[in-house]
Amino acid sequence: MNPTKILLDHGSGGRASHQLINELILTTFNNPILATLDDGAVFQLNEQRFAFSTDSYTVVPLFFPGGNIGELAINGTVNDLAMCGAKPLYLSVGFIIEEGFPIDDFQKILSSMQKAAAQAGIMIITGDTKVVPRGTADKIFINTTGIGIIPNHITISGTNARPGDKIIISGTIADHGITILTRREGLQFESPLQSDTAPLNSLVALMLATTPQIHTLRDPTRGGVATTLNEIAGQSKMGMKLYENALPIRDEVRGACELLGLDPLYLANEGKLIACVAPEAAEALLKAMQQHPYAHETCIIGEVTADHRGTVIMETGIGGTRIVDMLSGEPLPRIC
Amino acid sequence: MNPTKILLDHGSGGRASHQLINELILTTFNNPILATLDDGAVFQLNEQRFAFSTDSYTVVPLFFPGGNIGELAINGTVNDLAMCGAKPLYLSVGFIIEEGFPIDDFQKILSSMQKAAAQAGIMIITGDTKVVPRGTADKIFINTTGIGIIPNHITISGTNARPGDKIIISGTIADHGITILTRREGLQFESPLQSDTAPLNSLVALMLATTPQIHTLRDPTRGGVATTLNEIAGQSKMGMKLYENALPIRDEVRGACELLGLDPLYLANEGKLIACVAPEAAEALLKAMQQHPYAHETCIIGEVTADHRGTVIMETGIGGTRIVDMLSGEPLPRIC
Repeated sequence: MNPTKILLDHGSGGRASHQLINELILTTFNNPILATLDDGAVFQLNEQRFAFSTDSYTVVPLFFPGGNIGELAINGTVNDLAMCGAKPLYLSVGFIIEEGFPIDDFQKILSSMQKAAAQAGIMIITGDTKVVPRGTADKIFINTTGIGIIPNHITISGTNARPGDKIIISGTIADHGITILTRREGLQFESPLQSDTAPLNSLVALMLATTPQIHTLRDPTRGGVATTLNEIAGQSKMGMKLYENALPIRDEVRGACELLGLDPLYLANEGKLIACVAPEAAEALLKAMQQHPYAHETCIIGEVTADHRGTVIMETGIGGTRIVDMLSGEPLPRIC
Repeated sequence: MNPTKILLDHGSGGRASHQLINELILTTFNNPILATLDDGAVFQLNEQRFAFSTDSYTVVPLFFPGGNIGELAINGTVNDLAMCGAKPLYLSVGFIIEEGFPIDDFQKILSSMQKAAAQAGIMIITGDTKVVPRGTADKIFINTTGIGIIPNHITISGTNARPGDKIIISGTIADHGITILTRREGLQFESPLQSDTAPLNSLVALMLATTPQIHTLRDPTRGGVATTLNEIAGQSKMGMKLYENALPIRDEVRGACELLGLDPLYLANEGKLIACVAPEAAEALLKAMQQHPYAHETCIIGEVTADHRGTVIMETGIGGTRIVDMLSGEPLPRIC
């Protein structure tokens, strides 16, 4: 590692995060399950495969249009399990709370968590609460860790993307990231921006019931669509081709991104998924997904190629192509 | 809840923590598995019972005699699973790191975690790393969440303590708590104090192989032996009688406690367990435990009674009795 200190960029979900994970964490905790680097770990026990996933949530502000840190913490981990093809079952929750945090706000967060858990059909069955002195944490951090079961015929992984696969996204991009960033900047827009936080397990169940030809599922959170596609390109050793004109972006999101000089491809989503699916299954899958309340705007945004392996290329709106790299050197901390 | 803000005492593991959990968290996340309040949750799937447990570690200082936050985070969650009678299998780890944290220290913590995991025979299979800006967290917080399997004939719970059960402790008390507190106060003693952090799963396996008559297992961490026995008294609706003269306390720990005005009954342990065991099995169990490297000083410190139900009473060294309450109003933050 070149730097001697942890930098914000190490937590961005982009290139520096991957370096930290690959060079330090994976080499120390050296085991084959961790090394797959999917959204969750998969292990097998008594003929049953399980998915297991953890995330800490540090978002600022805690309350934002479309949600709060509580439902984000439930939906985020539910989605990581769903991206393994798992049916999420149980969650643990760990709170680290700063002394002086208003109990009213804590109650609101708890209620949102319970509501989100009920909506996703999962139970919070164990927990831990630590309180740290004023000034040693910023209000509240939440860890959730989840466990789910993977049906035996399902094998979903970033390693499984194949040439010719269509790349599908379940709706508009950058909604969560731009909402958080504009709130933090104190900006207001005429058309209100809103986080897309949502549990995607019922959408995944619908997709898996529609076709067995889904190869990869991933939710493009920290680092956005660009970083997620780079991860899949790296895991599968395939190329990814994106069509710029096909990217679904709300007008108000595009406007806010232009104003702030941000690329929506790198902004977090909290209620969207990317799927790599066999081309012959894509049309039926699109139709089925568009019936789901969280996926009306599902569309094809690209394809997996045997060319430029390990790299994401975008066909731009004006007919050129450019390389789409991982998020790098532009940390957007505490987005989730 | 009387206060309107979260207080340090809400995280002490004592009375205020229990109030917060019972009045706010349990009523919101209302489900029967969470409500058992054992060290981990127990759920069943395909005829197999699982234990699932989470803890966040915020200890100050990060490095202390006998260990660091990394091995504490592994051993603590391994122990919570073992206290359910489970064989721990897999852990997740979530880091929240303050910008600027030295990578050398992070590497030391990772190495300790890997060493502790190997010693306990478990694997870290999934993780998450968040970095927050300088001043919004204190150096590093670690969450670990673990999963283990419970053999079908084992039922261990705080609810199972029965009148006549012997209360066994696996060694000296207060070692971890007094080590952390004296380090924080900058005190040095002639006989060095040292944390007792250790994985107890092999000790539990030995105990379960020795006798089927173990009713309750619990590790007396935050809040110490006094709080843990109050928890068992509350869960089982039994009385607990402690013999003050039987409590194993190192001389140097006793001395430091007197100097600082602290009661060792309320100080955290990180490598000890309390067992409630049928009286006819106690002698054989003691002998077996004393052979284990982490339990040479195992002894009987009391018994479960049908009197003074829900209460812990101590027979004092001078022949009187006194009520031993939960930790209350004396927060010792960031002890683990």
